Amino acid sequence: MAFLENCWYAAAWDEEIGEAPLARRLLDKPVVLFRAADGRAAALADRCIHRQAPLSHGRIEERGLRCGYHGLLFAQDGTCIEVPGQTSVPPGARVASYPVVERDRFVWIWLGDPARADAASVPDYHWNDDPGWRSVQGRFHVAGGWRLIVDNLLDLSHVQFVHGATLGTDRVADFPVEVSRDGDRVHVDRWIMGGKPPGMFARAGGIDYDVDRWQLITWTPPSHVVIDAGCAPAGRGAREGNRAGGIELYSNHTITPETETSAHYFWHHARGFNLDDESITAYLAQAAETTFAEDVGLIEAQQRSIETMPAGLPRVDINADAGVLAAHRVLDRLISEEA
Amino acid sequence: MAFLENCWYAAAWDEEIGEAPLARRLLDKPVVLFRAADGRAAALADRCIHRQAPLSHGRIEERGLRCGYHGLLFAQDGTCIEVPGQTSVPPGARVASYPVVERDRFVWIWLGDPARADAASVPDYHWNDDPGWRSVQGRFHVAGGWRLIVDNLLDLSHVQFVHGATLGTDRVADFPVEVSRDGDRVHVDRWIMGGKPPGMFARAGGIDYDVDRWQLITWTPPSHVVIDAGCAPAGRGAREGNRAGGIELYSNHTITPETETSAHYFWHHARGFNLDDESITAYLAQAAETTFAEDVGLIEAQQRSIETMPAGLPRVDINADAGVLAAHRVLDRLISEEA
Amino acid sequence: MAFLENCWYAAAWDEEIGEAPLARRLLDKPVVLFRAADGRAAALADRCIHRQAPLSHGRIEERGLRCGYHGLLFAQDGTCIEVPGQTSVPPGARVASYPVVERDRFVWIWLGDPARADAASVPDYHWNDDPGWRSVQGRFHVAGGWRLIVDNLLDLSHVQFVHGATLGTDRVADFPVEVSRDGDRVHVDRWIMGGKPPGMFARAGGIDYDVDRWQLITWTPPSHVVIDAGCAPAGRGAREGNRAGGIELYSNHTITPETETSAHYFWHHARGFNLDDESITAYLAQAAETTFAEDVGLIEAQQRSIETMPAGLPRVDINADAGVLAAHRVLDRLISEEA
Repeated sequence: MAFLENCWYAAAWDEEIGEAPLARRLLDKPVVLFRAADGRAAALADRCIHRQAPLSHGRIEERGLRCGYHGLLFAQDGTCIEVPGQTSVPPGARVASYPVVERDRFVWIWLGDPARADAASVPDYHWNDDPGWRSVQGRFHVAGGWRLIVDNLLDLSHVQFVHGATLGTDRVADFPVEVSRDGDRVHVDRWIMGGKPPGMFARAGGIDYDVDRWQLITWTPPSHVVIDAGCAPAGRGAREGNRAGGIELYSNHTITPETETSAHYFWHHARGFNLDDESITAYLAQAAETTFAEDVGLIEAQQRSIETMPAGLPRVDINADAGVLAAHRVLDRLISEEA
Repeated sequence: MAFLENCWYAAAWDEEIGEAPLARRLLDKPVVLFRAADGRAAALADRCIHRQAPLSHGRIEERGLRCGYHGLLFAQDGTCIEVPGQTSVPPGARVASYPVVERDRFVWIWLGDPARADAASVPDYHWNDDPGWRSVQGRFHVAGGWRLIVDNLLDLSHVQFVHGATLGTDRVADFPVEVSRDGDRVHVDRWIMGGKPPGMFARAGGIDYDVDRWQLITWTPPSHVVIDAGCAPAGRGAREGNRAGGIELYSNHTITPETETSAHYFWHHARGFNLDDESITAYLAQAAETTFAEDVGLIEAQQRSIETMPAGLPRVDINADAGVLAAHRVLDRLISEEA
Repeated sequence: MAFLENCWYAAAWDEEIGEAPLARRLLDKPVVLFRAADGRAAALADRCIHRQAPLSHGRIEERGLRCGYHGLLFAQDGTCIEVPGQTSVPPGARVASYPVVERDRFVWIWLGDPARADAASVPDYHWNDDPGWRSVQGRFHVAGGWRLIVDNLLDLSHVQFVHGATLGTDRVADFPVEVSRDGDRVHVDRWIMGGKPPGMFARAGGIDYDVDRWQLITWTPPSHVVIDAGCAPAGRGAREGNRAGGIELYSNHTITPETETSAHYFWHHARGFNLDDESITAYLAQAAETTFAEDVGLIEAQQRSIETMPAGLPRVDINADAGVLAAHRVLDRLISEEA
């Protein structure tokens, strides 16, 4: 199994869980997400123990989720509490239930050993639910492996080739990255000193002067990527900490494996400037959607290419892979430790 | 092989066999159905012995079915009787032919040992071609295994959960079934004593009083299900045989495996009341189509769920499964005897 | 592997290779075709050595093809000549390049051992680029194996059954073929002496008298088929070489395997009469497209039929297969010699 199981994954946006059960395949398991009568999100195995109908075809009731085939009723903890036509429930009749936590507008799920689920270890995406930031968000279903998406985010040298028309200038790949470790986290920092701001910053931030620009990536295993991106007036010491007169945008991502070769890709962008300008909000939402769709198209082509690759074909690494390779080492170790 | 081979299956409605050959996969075999010059239905293996083109791409002629590729001509019994460009036919040149019987508006086919095919054992669906009854019929292609469809019909406790809006009242599952055997047949009887009639009966039969209601299921192996359904005024002894003042509706079904995981599902509904009221005919046809489409949707989801189910996951049986389990025992024995 | 590798295949029509890279799967290999800055066609393996993105998602530049993911630049010969963000290129960084030759409006590719590629052995389709002939052309993607398409062309007895409405008269299959070998080439000649011309000839050539008609097929391994077809006034010695008063039409075909079970089918028709009559050009283009679409539909059905055929089912050969079987013998030997 190429998944890390004992960790939190984003199962859904909170607003996706409503009056109807939501079916979603996560780490190759069928999961049904729903909001119980008390309003709390819950997650069960999406397969009735009786005749294997998906519980997501059922309906939410006061006491839980009722199967839409023969009416077995399951409480939020997965216990079967009613079987139509009989007064008792077979002993041990239950489906798996998965710990969930709602935080930062995500519904997080723990699909590994429930005893190890600790809400304190939910990754931090506070920018998405913080009055000091203005956030836009989205989700892609990607017909590509989750690790390919993580790789994409850890090597932003792709920006000028994939996103030339949207994000790129022609200079990103020319600036080297600095890679560092911090426990199991990997940081990939790139500073692009001097030069014009990229189109999105220029337009959203109204910046018409030369800037020093940063892309400070933090990867938390297995698939959480926070990118502190922004720019400030050139030559005023942004790199040393003076961001005055600049703009900050967190481009945040978290990827949840659907199967070995497909994934749910959640992103949000949070800006710390011009919070109330809805035209900027609309522009950034649209620009992010367009940009990530470019990534998704490329990653899906890459996935198909890998699937048909004969064994033994050589692969080449390049300098820009430093962050990707550092994360691979951590991830391979964590997955192997878990197995 | 999970099919019973030495038995009759519905291959098609009689009206489906006309001027063009009909290709249909049955028990995972390619079959071509056609009506010969004498008007009789015939069934051959749908694969020319020469270059394997489907004979269903050919054309029906006076003497048989001619392959649409290089023109080999096959008689109704599968013998090749002409090869273009040569005066003799290679010895042994023939495709399999399958016994067929037309009865009750079905074309029945025998895909097992032809020597054992006995027209007397064609299952009885006389209601479908009987002036005492008014019938409506239909066919679904189901992306689900044939046994799942049989199971569906043998446990009508699903009615109130799957068909709440159409057939159901909220009380079906509360009434126990009585299961009995009669040779290899299984009977599953449910009586729902007292109470309002379900919506379809109320409307089609104009019934506005309390009723005793019956669902008397007869399953004949492998996949023939006749349901004697109806209701009569409550408390007048319907259960003891007095159906006076009531209505009778036969909900009949026969399922033919297409592959291991897909099936042709033929149904007809025959009513014994208000025979000439075409508005009732139209209403019942539409109600049945809607209802069975609900079943099909659920069964297809169940099939997908089963296909991705890890080995060793527990399954639970409930009281309502009594009929299903009785039929499984018979069917498993018959299939194992045949193998 | 069921392909002959050391030979030329048509990769594309010349006009298909333009300003954007063209992805095409050939002999189950991903290939990207493009026209370099000097205008010459080039073909590379369509998979970057870095992260396996298809190079066909990249862009053509002055010096070669640049990957659309992280910007590696590849020269026409497959050598990586630039890696963004670093000054040197990893040694041995290259993708496979394939010899190509442009001739007769085709781009020919050699996917086997490049050392054996000899432009002199490109098959002859000069009719397609010759002022003495007027040509129309097309391409089909066929969900059927390449050998099935070759078989189709080597046994024209199918014409009267598949193309009854377009090409056929009712007499083709009644005239025997003469099969001969000429090195690894196979010739299949059929003369249909006397009788009305087929519809297409009648209309395109304005022929309203009885004709002697010829179909002289030359197959060159592995998949090149030239058909010299035409007719001349009956009884004037066409068979002995006097084609005076007749018309000639070359129906030429070359098939390139995409996968084991799918193919690219290129055809062109070149006529030697009424060269400037554009209404005839339009008519022949449309007739050929219609006719070959009939073949493609049948071949695709045949492919599906073969894929689901149980092992051990008997196959029958007929007299009309003489040419097909002769070609099979040559092809099987060549493939086995290569392996």
